[in-house]
Amino acid sequence: MSLLGEHTGLYTDHYELVMAQGYFLSSKRNDSAVFDYFFRGAPYRGAFAVFAGLENLLEMISNFRFSEKDCKFLRERGFNAEFVDYLSRFRFRGNIYAPPEGEVVFPLEPVIQVEGNIIETQLIETLLLNTVNFETLIATKANRIRNMAGDKLVVDFGMRRAQGTGSLQASRAAIVGGADSTSNIYSAMLYDIESTGTQAHSWIQSFDDELTSFREFAKAFPDKCILLVDTYDTLNQGIPNAITVAGEMEERGQKLLGVRLDSGDLAYLSKKARKMLDDAGFEYVKIVVSNKLDEYVIRSLREQKAPIDAFGVGTSLITGRNDAALDGVYKLAECDNKPRLKISNDLEKIILPGKKKVYRFFDSCNYFYADGICMKDEDDPKIIYHPIHPEKHVDVSALRREELAKPVMLEGKRTVPQKSVKEIAKYARKRLQHLEDEHKRLEFPHIYKVGISQKLMNIRTSIVNEMKNKVSGKS
Amino acid sequence: MSLLGEHTGLYTDHYELVMAQGYFLSSKRNDSAVFDYFFRGAPYRGAFAVFAGLENLLEMISNFRFSEKDCKFLRERGFNAEFVDYLSRFRFRGNIYAPPEGEVVFPLEPVIQVEGNIIETQLIETLLLNTVNFETLIATKANRIRNMAGDKLVVDFGMRRAQGTGSLQASRAAIVGGADSTSNIYSAMLYDIESTGTQAHSWIQSFDDELTSFREFAKAFPDKCILLVDTYDTLNQGIPNAITVAGEMEERGQKLLGVRLDSGDLAYLSKKARKMLDDAGFEYVKIVVSNKLDEYVIRSLREQKAPIDAFGVGTSLITGRNDAALDGVYKLAECDNKPRLKISNDLEKIILPGKKKVYRFFDSCNYFYADGICMKDEDDPKIIYHPIHPEKHVDVSALRREELAKPVMLEGKRTVPQKSVKEIAKYARKRLQHLEDEHKRLEFPHIYKVGISQKLMNIRTSIVNEMKNKVSGKS
Repeated sequence: MSLLGEHTGLYTDHYELVMAQGYFLSSKRNDSAVFDYFFRGAPYRGAFAVFAGLENLLEMISNFRFSEKDCKFLRERGFNAEFVDYLSRFRFRGNIYAPPEGEVVFPLEPVIQVEGNIIETQLIETLLLNTVNFETLIATKANRIRNMAGDKLVVDFGMRRAQGTGSLQASRAAIVGGADSTSNIYSAMLYDIESTGTQAHSWIQSFDDELTSFREFAKAFPDKCILLVDTYDTLNQGIPNAITVAGEMEERGQKLLGVRLDSGDLAYLSKKARKMLDDAGFEYVKIVVSNKLDEYVIRSLREQKAPIDAFGVGTSLITGRNDAALDGVYKLAECDNKPRLKISNDLEKIILPGKKKVYRFFDSCNYFYADGICMKDEDDPKIIYHPIHPEKHVDVSALRREELAKPVMLEGKRTVPQKSVKEIAKYARKRLQHLEDEHKRLEFPHIYKVGISQKLMNIRTSIVNEMKNKVSGKS
Repeated sequence: MSLLGEHTGLYTDHYELVMAQGYFLSSKRNDSAVFDYFFRGAPYRGAFAVFAGLENLLEMISNFRFSEKDCKFLRERGFNAEFVDYLSRFRFRGNIYAPPEGEVVFPLEPVIQVEGNIIETQLIETLLLNTVNFETLIATKANRIRNMAGDKLVVDFGMRRAQGTGSLQASRAAIVGGADSTSNIYSAMLYDIESTGTQAHSWIQSFDDELTSFREFAKAFPDKCILLVDTYDTLNQGIPNAITVAGEMEERGQKLLGVRLDSGDLAYLSKKARKMLDDAGFEYVKIVVSNKLDEYVIRSLREQKAPIDAFGVGTSLITGRNDAALDGVYKLAECDNKPRLKISNDLEKIILPGKKKVYRFFDSCNYFYADGICMKDEDDPKIIYHPIHPEKHVDVSALRREELAKPVMLEGKRTVPQKSVKEIAKYARKRLQHLEDEHKRLEFPHIYKVGISQKLMNIRTSIVNEMKNKVSGKS
């Protein structure tokens, strides 16, 4: 299923269409172009990101077209009739190179590379950024939460606080990054993922007393009964009532699955509740908690040895708070077969020009050791250099290496099979095992090495000098 | 156009369907229910919110159904066949009361009230929260930005950093709250709003030199030519090239519309650029700025008297950063014709029970003075009390008053005509003129009075006491 249906082409910034019309009506109409997608800083002041959104992106690019209604609208808004006519027949016929979805990726390196005609490569920019920036943000957030939750369950509860229909992609990306299931049942249908949920306070309130509400729920859902125990008074009423119902269920040969705490001090209440349940002989009843959780609260709860079996995480997971967005960009690296860049007084902000490839190098223990960016047409580099301080460099000649990106679309056709979210999540889990724990620290993580080849450095330097000479010649 | 098409019913949390099935298969199947939507704190530590999302909500509730595909999926996931059959024919037939979209609303007061059968009122919870929480957040953010930008243009540039397809609603809500136009052209088509855009750095880079790229753009778009001047060197190259092109355009009887600054110190560069343009005789060329703007940066730029004509705002506007979500909730206030509440040790968190109405009182200068919440069936209150400290109260008997909410849907049918986003934005602007500036301050705003009637307070107290007696009787 496509998120945007027949209107995928129009899911873009106005200026992409303005530029496309400009190219279309100029001599540059048939120019080739290469764009890089990359981000300059990892989210959450972390060291890495979990690459997500590729399946949705490829699916939307495969469906990228302008409907009759879209074309009519564009004509009404003043776009050139000949150009709109071109759009009405438009299909993306370019090439896309990317790592598998779920890969661990790092700042600065080209994650996605798009090659094709200048018009088609420009037209997909916003769609690509909108999809990949967001899903990668959420998958990365989910992974941080997963890392703190250890082997406990993590459930996405965020839909009601999500940024509108972005929830559909967010719940998917949460699974990619390590959540076990979601409350978002439409996303579960779209992406074949697990959805779960029991009851809200309104269920409890709608009955004249809590015990009756618990009994009715246990009768209706004997196999998956989790009781929300904090509507009136958690320790004086909720847990005692849950114990009563657990006993009644046992008499019927059933087992209460769990209780959920949604307010108060979760460390304190979970310990007290655990003891009350255990003392009553219900060691098997699980404790689920929710309410303003994030990776830091979960870390704290686990440090306090709170006996919690599952975490329901809402706003922080579904919106990626405290980061609102991943600042990934899509920059022109080559046009008309010439390498291009944008100058900046800040060397870190200068784009790496030309068609490139990225190698990942592994150390002797099979951990990720460093990534190296080089020109597409050069031999494997032996040494990679810090992109700004070349006096820092490492010899990678003896290390095992993999190329990070593979062709995923050639001449507009997918070259890799579709992958389910479950497969992608499994791949992410596997790859994250190759990332050392120091890179996963919540605060001040060990920064991963991303370097460039001598050849790439030389090309960048010569273009920068050429550009600067032009400017100083002028002024 | 509907955001979710035929799958609107499934756009929900799993537990809503679990509870609905529980009610459906129990004796409570035909119980009546009343839910309140409200939020406990205004976003951005502000004093108010701009209510948004109502049109989308009503449109989605009008289309709220479960497709054959949805029903098949629910059966496969283990929902009861008889219940799924009921869902296949489900339509919302309840009543909804709400203020006009664009109204200024405040913490604690019921903004939306939903009445109907317990199943239908429960089933729309997630859709309502997802839509209204998000659009209200963004409209409120847009209004903060608008207040700082004064009479200058504000354009939403955020689509590429938006939370996935949530961008469609965000760009709409940005206009409701006071933005002038958006880059998001699909949202512009969906909601008939203005979209704008010129060129990216890639346009400049794709030519062999900047001057040629400017000339080509000016030729292609002589009426709306805004040139991005920071690709190589703003003051030494970009502005001089723009001046050259402005001169060439004048010779053709055209006028350069503007230049855009997207990096560097925007106060410094805008002043220098303004002077260079003016000295060359191009006082009419506007200065547009973008790059990490929000209400605080815009305030600072205006305090520094930066000569800026338009602000392009991205991530902060489209995601509502630094708040990720509005924490609006949907709480059961009445069931089976009995008032209900959830207890909390924190009096502020106790729900206001029963069917209610909200009055807005105006002072003698026609400013909003206070809002008062009372029981639906009581006479107009003469005194309203602080909800927690009743010793604080105000006499409102002499004040002009309006009822905040009107019926917008009765028995599942809209009772108010559809409103365009332009009309809604105009309404918001008009209503915001009745809110004193002290409530609009970015930091530590003057808190607006929201009180309750004596009758509502008495009902709350008696139910709380009844509930507490039950608990203490038990323990």
